[in-house]
Amino acid sequence: MPVPLIVCEAPLKALPESLLVGVSGGVDSVALLHALVRTGRKPVVLHFDHGWRTESGADARRVRALAEHLGLRHVAGKMPPTAKLHREAEARVARYVFFARTAQRLGISHLVLAHHADDQVETFLMQLLRGSGAAGRGMEPVSKRAGLVLHRPWLGVWKKQILTYARCHKLEWREDATNTDTRHRRNLIRLRVLPYLQKQIGQPVAINLLRAAEIFRAESEWLDGLCAMMADQQELTVKDLRGTPLAQQRRTILRWLQGWSVKDISFADVEAVRGLLENNIPAKVNLSAGRFTRRRSGKIFME
Amino acid sequence: MPVPLIVCEAPLKALPESLLVGVSGGVDSVALLHALVRTGRKPVVLHFDHGWRTESGADARRVRALAEHLGLRHVAGKMPPTAKLHREAEARVARYVFFARTAQRLGISHLVLAHHADDQVETFLMQLLRGSGAAGRGMEPVSKRAGLVLHRPWLGVWKKQILTYARCHKLEWREDATNTDTRHRRNLIRLRVLPYLQKQIGQPVAINLLRAAEIFRAESEWLDGLCAMMADQQELTVKDLRGTPLAQQRRTILRWLQGWSVKDISFADVEAVRGLLENNIPAKVNLSAGRFTRRRSGKIFME
Repeated sequence: MPVPLIVCEAPLKALPESLLVGVSGGVDSVALLHALVRTGRKPVVLHFDHGWRTESGADARRVRALAEHLGLRHVAGKMPPTAKLHREAEARVARYVFFARTAQRLGISHLVLAHHADDQVETFLMQLLRGSGAAGRGMEPVSKRAGLVLHRPWLGVWKKQILTYARCHKLEWREDATNTDTRHRRNLIRLRVLPYLQKQIGQPVAINLLRAAEIFRAESEWLDGLCAMMADQQELTVKDLRGTPLAQQRRTILRWLQGWSVKDISFADVEAVRGLLENNIPAKVNLSAGRFTRRRSGKIFME
Repeated sequence: MPVPLIVCEAPLKALPESLLVGVSGGVDSVALLHALVRTGRKPVVLHFDHGWRTESGADARRVRALAEHLGLRHVAGKMPPTAKLHREAEARVARYVFFARTAQRLGISHLVLAHHADDQVETFLMQLLRGSGAAGRGMEPVSKRAGLVLHRPWLGVWKKQILTYARCHKLEWREDATNTDTRHRRNLIRLRVLPYLQKQIGQPVAINLLRAAEIFRAESEWLDGLCAMMADQQELTVKDLRGTPLAQQRRTILRWLQGWSVKDISFADVEAVRGLLENNIPAKVNLSAGRFTRRRSGKIFME
């Protein structure tokens, strides 16, 4: 089997047998669906219509036809009519709500997504440059979200390899015209920033960033494991937390705030809560959406 | 005291009393020297002449005059005549050899350097884009090198703040003409890449990168502590290492190889040594400069 085919199919071997797969109709997800079927699985095809493009109804019909052609079950969803279109964050939430509901209804909790190495590099670079509370680490190959187990087996596979795979198998897909619109930050990173960096630095920048993301991701997983015991408690114990390294304090606080579903946690929020470990400052920290934490009798509480 | 003055002087308070300080004659190190004297210290001024510029002799004379004016001891060094000029790496080595010898001769092991937040962002971004074995984490605020303890108290202070400080105190310094030469990669990052990213992303990119570097740096310190026990052994024990998380295996191997002074350790080297933990592959890994590791009787050896 030629290399791109091995590269694309090998990471699918470890996936569970019973699966949902998100298929937009673009080359990545069409190739993923094909590869899943070739490994002997019969995934349920989920398509979500964001209503972003005039031809999005045509995408939905094509994906349904493809599923029927492959003899696979197919479920379609679309943005609720009240939603504000073009809001990426809102569309993402609506898409995951659709995925989670369908998963529950069908009793299949594993969802495979076609995110690949180029997506991972773009995500990692965006997180780093935009600044995020935990610094950027890219996407997880396996993660949990709203009762779903998300699998991204292609985070180590480059778009170029997926295209080769799709051409080898004579697959048909639709190009998404919004992929070239640099008003979307992700497209800007892909089409302008990464080529610029590559040219200026004279090094395979995307490969280096993918490797860095993988190093940080694996370390993050390890560190989360070390923090879980403290971060999963109702309250943080000042004395225990004070005895841990700086980075462990930060990460425990971040995970603890996330556990309480605090939104938009910034690095400054984490550092402010960490300030509660000192004795001589006011023992209250304001967070987003009117929530706050307080230190009392050697414990840090969420209120 | 105006804010830039506090920002520049506060981080110096925690430094030891007896110090060496590296002074090139540029604004950063001249301001650092001034601030150190203002905190009541009498550091020994070290100047290293790289011979890069025709006027570098003038720099050396100015730094000596400045030290004499402040009543401070002064030691000058220069590149050995056999060295290849313009080789940044070689110059760095020669500089640290000079620093280390002087430290030993004077019996003062603490050296303060004027690296600042802009330097840190540039270093971090270069490491990320060029790809380094441990992924980028920037410079350490305190580190050890060849018997020296290096202090970089200004990694959180921006160049702009140092300039304000220098102007407030009416300091005199020399502009380094090589700072605008974009053939040097660091200058390229500072003068082109960072302004470009700032413009494209529309966010305070340098601030976000500095924060990410600080998060990763603190985590790195924590992880190194967790790996020290295994990494400081003569051999790695396969069974023990196999029982640790992926990232711990990687980092333990990296630190162990560094402990054996292996040069140019790439991520691929680390992964190859990690491959020795599996049973079914050839039990030898080649490293740089003809060195290699081997697995035998459940241990990994350096040979």
